[in-house]
Amino acid sequence: MTTPAELYETHRELLDRAVQAAQERDYWSAFPESPSKSVYGEDAAPAGERAFTTLLGQQFPIDLPGTLGTVQSERSPYGIELAVSYPKADPLALVAAAKAAIPAWRAVGPTGRAGVAAEIIKRINARSFELAHAVQHTTGQAFVMAFQAGGPHAQDRALEAVAYALAATTRMPGAAAWAKPQRGGDPLRLAKTTTVVGRGVSVVIGCNTFPTWNSYPGLFASLVTGNPVIVKPHPGAVLPLAITVQISRAVLTEAGLSPDLVSLAVEEPGEGIAATLATHPDVRIVDFTGSSEFGNWLEANARQAVVYTEKSGLNTVIVDSTDDYKGLLRNLSFSLSLYSGQMCTTPQNLLVPRDGIETDAGHKSLDEFGADLSAALGKLLGDPKRAAGTLGAIVNDGVRGRLAEAGDLPSILASSTEVTDEQFPGATIRTPVVARLDAADEKTYTREWFGPISFLIATDSTRHALEIFVETVRAHGALTASVHSTSPEVLAAAREAALDAGVHLSENLTGGVFVNQTAAFSDLHGTGANPAATASLTDDHFVTGRFFALQSRHHV
Amino acid sequence: MTTPAELYETHRELLDRAVQAAQERDYWSAFPESPSKSVYGEDAAPAGERAFTTLLGQQFPIDLPGTLGTVQSERSPYGIELAVSYPKADPLALVAAAKAAIPAWRAVGPTGRAGVAAEIIKRINARSFELAHAVQHTTGQAFVMAFQAGGPHAQDRALEAVAYALAATTRMPGAAAWAKPQRGGDPLRLAKTTTVVGRGVSVVIGCNTFPTWNSYPGLFASLVTGNPVIVKPHPGAVLPLAITVQISRAVLTEAGLSPDLVSLAVEEPGEGIAATLATHPDVRIVDFTGSSEFGNWLEANARQAVVYTEKSGLNTVIVDSTDDYKGLLRNLSFSLSLYSGQMCTTPQNLLVPRDGIETDAGHKSLDEFGADLSAALGKLLGDPKRAAGTLGAIVNDGVRGRLAEAGDLPSILASSTEVTDEQFPGATIRTPVVARLDAADEKTYTREWFGPISFLIATDSTRHALEIFVETVRAHGALTASVHSTSPEVLAAAREAALDAGVHLSENLTGGVFVNQTAAFSDLHGTGANPAATASLTDDHFVTGRFFALQSRHHV
Repeated sequence: MTTPAELYETHRELLDRAVQAAQERDYWSAFPESPSKSVYGEDAAPAGERAFTTLLGQQFPIDLPGTLGTVQSERSPYGIELAVSYPKADPLALVAAAKAAIPAWRAVGPTGRAGVAAEIIKRINARSFELAHAVQHTTGQAFVMAFQAGGPHAQDRALEAVAYALAATTRMPGAAAWAKPQRGGDPLRLAKTTTVVGRGVSVVIGCNTFPTWNSYPGLFASLVTGNPVIVKPHPGAVLPLAITVQISRAVLTEAGLSPDLVSLAVEEPGEGIAATLATHPDVRIVDFTGSSEFGNWLEANARQAVVYTEKSGLNTVIVDSTDDYKGLLRNLSFSLSLYSGQMCTTPQNLLVPRDGIETDAGHKSLDEFGADLSAALGKLLGDPKRAAGTLGAIVNDGVRGRLAEAGDLPSILASSTEVTDEQFPGATIRTPVVARLDAADEKTYTREWFGPISFLIATDSTRHALEIFVETVRAHGALTASVHSTSPEVLAAAREAALDAGVHLSENLTGGVFVNQTAAFSDLHGTGANPAATASLTDDHFVTGRFFALQSRHHV
Repeated sequence: MTTPAELYETHRELLDRAVQAAQERDYWSAFPESPSKSVYGEDAAPAGERAFTTLLGQQFPIDLPGTLGTVQSERSPYGIELAVSYPKADPLALVAAAKAAIPAWRAVGPTGRAGVAAEIIKRINARSFELAHAVQHTTGQAFVMAFQAGGPHAQDRALEAVAYALAATTRMPGAAAWAKPQRGGDPLRLAKTTTVVGRGVSVVIGCNTFPTWNSYPGLFASLVTGNPVIVKPHPGAVLPLAITVQISRAVLTEAGLSPDLVSLAVEEPGEGIAATLATHPDVRIVDFTGSSEFGNWLEANARQAVVYTEKSGLNTVIVDSTDDYKGLLRNLSFSLSLYSGQMCTTPQNLLVPRDGIETDAGHKSLDEFGADLSAALGKLLGDPKRAAGTLGAIVNDGVRGRLAEAGDLPSILASSTEVTDEQFPGATIRTPVVARLDAADEKTYTREWFGPISFLIATDSTRHALEIFVETVRAHGALTASVHSTSPEVLAAAREAALDAGVHLSENLTGGVFVNQTAAFSDLHGTGANPAATASLTDDHFVTGRFFALQSRHHV
């Protein structure tokens, strides 16, 4: 057995460094994003693939309380047979087991809990290749992206949440000596203690597209602040979280703690156990990533809990002018194509003045800009192998349906075409569609079209575009926004507009940084200031609602 | 004009010291609690009294947007004629004016806002004597308590909120340089900025008994995190907050800012503008102190806002044993008597084993303990002048009604009697009532009897008492709890029970510290972990929900 205190000592340097990075917010990463042999070792890639393959067609090896049968609900967007079945636990049994584990977890204290969490994340990192295959075949992310976003980037986000939770739960001293001077007498003296107490059972509801990246912050923030966590994966993306829970339970058991501090709640699609769990009186924290519809339902109905949601929105690009037209087109076309636009951060609404834009390559009319963007997409996705590596596969029928619907819009600039993958002939791969709209077509563009669907929207002016941006994002939310302009005045106005809209802003991205990507320990993801999300990944607000500081005091 | 940046420089040392004190949580106070000449100057007391007297029978000098008439709603529990009238503003006009002031306030930034807040608090401190009279004659607090709790203690709580807000809004750097190493190339470099953006218009709803102490934390936390604040006083206690708002508006105006960043919303009793304000779409933060009924209504209905409430509860004392019986009786009788039990922190339920307790004065049966507590109350309150100074006056008819109701309970240990005040013959002053109950009488003791009403409740054992304590506090809330025991095992069990119940615990208070009192910068008030309050005064959670951190990034 390795105690939580020992695990804290083992990982103390890493945790200290993570807390420092979260404060400084410059570049730092704990987990290398390159799936190369020089980093992860000669055998890591084949061993990870073998581990993944071994799981297929089997009952996933995990013991849970109150199991009632098994569930098998995943299908690979790449067309391979998964057939992994998972034990299905009674949600009420999971809540009861989680609740029973609380007092011992509370007694571990913040540093011990952070030590346990760091050990879990390190073991997750060691299984990054296995997880990459699991993420690829549940989300449709291409392998390298599945490795990076589902592996090290998600692990960095996990560690970031641990760092915030550790800092927030240790900021108030555990013990303080209070001595109040008294006129003509000895001071009044009290010894005071502060104990961190978790809010209660926590439920993390995962999504289909980023099962690890989007679930880890809530999972680890809740755990380190003293709460047991029930992980409820999307029925289409269970495996990455099942592996995560399996690792968590092993670490907890080895540390002499109840494995039920982290458990797994699977269901047949449509069974609705997320709602059952989220409204259970003992469930006091809910983290959710997914549709606005269910996110809003949770916010309205899980009233006994604090609810952190990340939902959908209208990610917006304002194009005013540029001194790097090629760079803009290259960067933007990649942003629209990466993982087939199935990121909550992919731009949807491209606002461009109907009179065109000034660029280093001369004035470009709106028609020219549309044609050039379409050509840039064609160039990026012309080679099927490279296209498949960028696009990944279409995750589910919902995206496919919207793609078909968008294809019927009247003015298509770039049509969606099929791409064939050599390695996985059964994969569903499609290039993005870009349609032209007018500012008056708000009925179309104020709806989120999750997937590889974007709109080039003609506006009266950049000023008009900024007004549309603020109005639509305030009303419907957004996770990202970006602006292209050579004018300091326009950039300043765009910054103010982004503050008014409540969204983070990227300016003039024309190189190797993309608006869809945020770096842990530096970029916040989501703001809480617009309807797309109730909080940021990760800041103090994301962790402080998960625990209470309780004091006792006595004379000395 | 003194700019916010200059005000920050002026008060920087004070603010730094406050931030440090909030971190260390040992004894620190910025504002002397003694109303003595040696501290506040020879003329401070008479000048303050003159200033107060000058206000009586007059229109209170304050300009507000959208005024519709005047309101006069206060009556002194000490029986003097107040007849101060206040301009009544249209709530919608206040919201609109507050909203219009937001962009300039956002641009001031965290340190400038903290500078403005510190200047306001310093000027409030300079008017402590005037405020003491205003608090005394609206709440019924005796003068010295009105001076301390309504003046310096409230100012310390205000400064504490400023310190937490300043620390939380400056923890993330305003600018960061990000450089991500690239294999075989220059690093990717981005400059990143973070801007603090307030959540929106804030409404602070005051209470009748502690208009300043309970309102200042929300007022200053919201203000420093970037939000305009509309102060809605209780119709019975307007003057202390009107003075506060008057000072705030003067400081804001002198700093070149809109005075409408802090405004005053008065009403005739029963008009219900608190509900109108709290559910206005532009109101995004609500702070409330008062009844559970309206607090719960706000939590359920002000869905567009974050809602911080401090409501009622069942403050509990567990008596197991003591090595200072006299000290226990003296301390407890003072806690029950101070301000006639009209504190949200006054003990109500005294849980004592029916077989009695062991003490340094020998075994005491439950009957003996009851008689001794009653005698201690008699001794404390025997002299009318001293009694009046401790008890203050009964604030309103609600308390008077409950006192009469409690007097009809079957087993009265101490009856409520009238006390005459020499200085204010019209004052309504009453000694506390203590009734004996059994653990089975939960219908009576699980209701809050706000006022000088307590119950000596016979339990089967201390273990039984701890069970009742946890159950009743989890279900009905509490702001304070205390235990008396000489047994380390019992104290440990009481600590665990307090963690389970979600309430702060005081142990063996027999000297000059009382369970009803909390010290700013050291003791938290409320926990959020039980139904009596949704947050603590003051910790990070109390401030982090009031703002967002918004980023922008661009290549360098």
